Amino acid sequence: MAQAQVPDVVVRRLPLYLRTLTYIEDSGQEVVSSAELGERTGFSPAQIRRDLSYFGEFGVQGLGYEVSYLRKQLEGILHVDQQWHLGLIGAGALGHALVKYRTFQRWNYYIKAVFDNDPARIGEAIDGLVIQPMPELARTIQEKHIEIAIIAVPAEHAQEVGEQVVDSGVRAILNYAPINLVLPPEVHVSHIDPVVNLQSITYYL
Amino acid sequence: MAQAQVPDVVVRRLPLYLRTLTYIEDSGQEVVSSAELGERTGFSPAQIRRDLSYFGEFGVQGLGYEVSYLRKQLEGILHVDQQWHLGLIGAGALGHALVKYRTFQRWNYYIKAVFDNDPARIGEAIDGLVIQPMPELARTIQEKHIEIAIIAVPAEHAQEVGEQVVDSGVRAILNYAPINLVLPPEVHVSHIDPVVNLQSITYYL
Repeated sequence: MAQAQVPDVVVRRLPLYLRTLTYIEDSGQEVVSSAELGERTGFSPAQIRRDLSYFGEFGVQGLGYEVSYLRKQLEGILHVDQQWHLGLIGAGALGHALVKYRTFQRWNYYIKAVFDNDPARIGEAIDGLVIQPMPELARTIQEKHIEIAIIAVPAEHAQEVGEQVVDSGVRAILNYAPINLVLPPEVHVSHIDPVVNLQSITYYL
Repeated sequence: MAQAQVPDVVVRRLPLYLRTLTYIEDSGQEVVSSAELGERTGFSPAQIRRDLSYFGEFGVQGLGYEVSYLRKQLEGILHVDQQWHLGLIGAGALGHALVKYRTFQRWNYYIKAVFDNDPARIGEAIDGLVIQPMPELARTIQEKHIEIAIIAVPAEHAQEVGEQVVDSGVRAILNYAPINLVLPPEVHVSHIDPVVNLQSITYYL
């Protein structure tokens, strides 16, 4: 299948195109050029056309892209057209903010369970989700069909937690701990670390 | 100066090298090969050597890199060897988590002021920082020498807030709102959006 050949950097740009197309569609606009998509996303029109061409012929030369059609195609490519169940490990300030982040659900990502190892937190609820102890991780992941884990624990516990969720059958992790997780190659890990973003900015200042 | 030619993608990898070098140094190890750096960061040794070669000759063929020296060089390149003052706009759940995120200070990033437009929040304190109303933004940015703004407001307010901080003299923004900001080219914007990360993962599932 052609999609197996798509570079990671291209895959990481697709969500930005999707997000922008959704805004354009919500505003009532039906057709968009690669030039306008470029202005709104910060990528060059040529790059956008090249990226999209990995997946098919979506545009009409000189006319542009049909917004709703391209949006639906991208949702299919990124598998956003189905519900995903997430498990969150770490119920600190960041964990609370993640449970309350409504934008996840708008994109079909649902946090279905929250875990922590702090006895003072276990049993408390965040927006109706009761914080569970870590020994319940494996069983809950199975029962609630959790496919993605969000790790929001301190750096020194992240590797151990990563191994636990992988042992429980999870193959996809969003890692907020400021440490690179070393896990089997079949596990898909994406990192979020605001310090990395800040340092990429202050380089230029 | 040679650094002006460095591609953005290279700049965005440097913080990951720095983070890993710091862990290696903290563990007491004095020399590291590009092979080990590759294993720990997930990049190829050839890529790491190529990235670092933009900035000078840091390694010794067959021996590797002196950990402490390379760490200090990268801190200089990324301008982490000085204090940066940050202003946070948006004191919701995410804003609270950001103020409490200790890792910022470990890397010399200090949140010095917090703003919100919600009268119910103004005057409250997060970890000793009193939430200020938006009309105080420009004056406070000047008084507290704030060089970087973190935008943690809902998507529909982000563009307006971005323009306000730029009008106040800020040239660097970390944007958590799930929308691309359209700002003058001299403004450095970095985006954090967990949905983008999740979609890059679910593409592969």
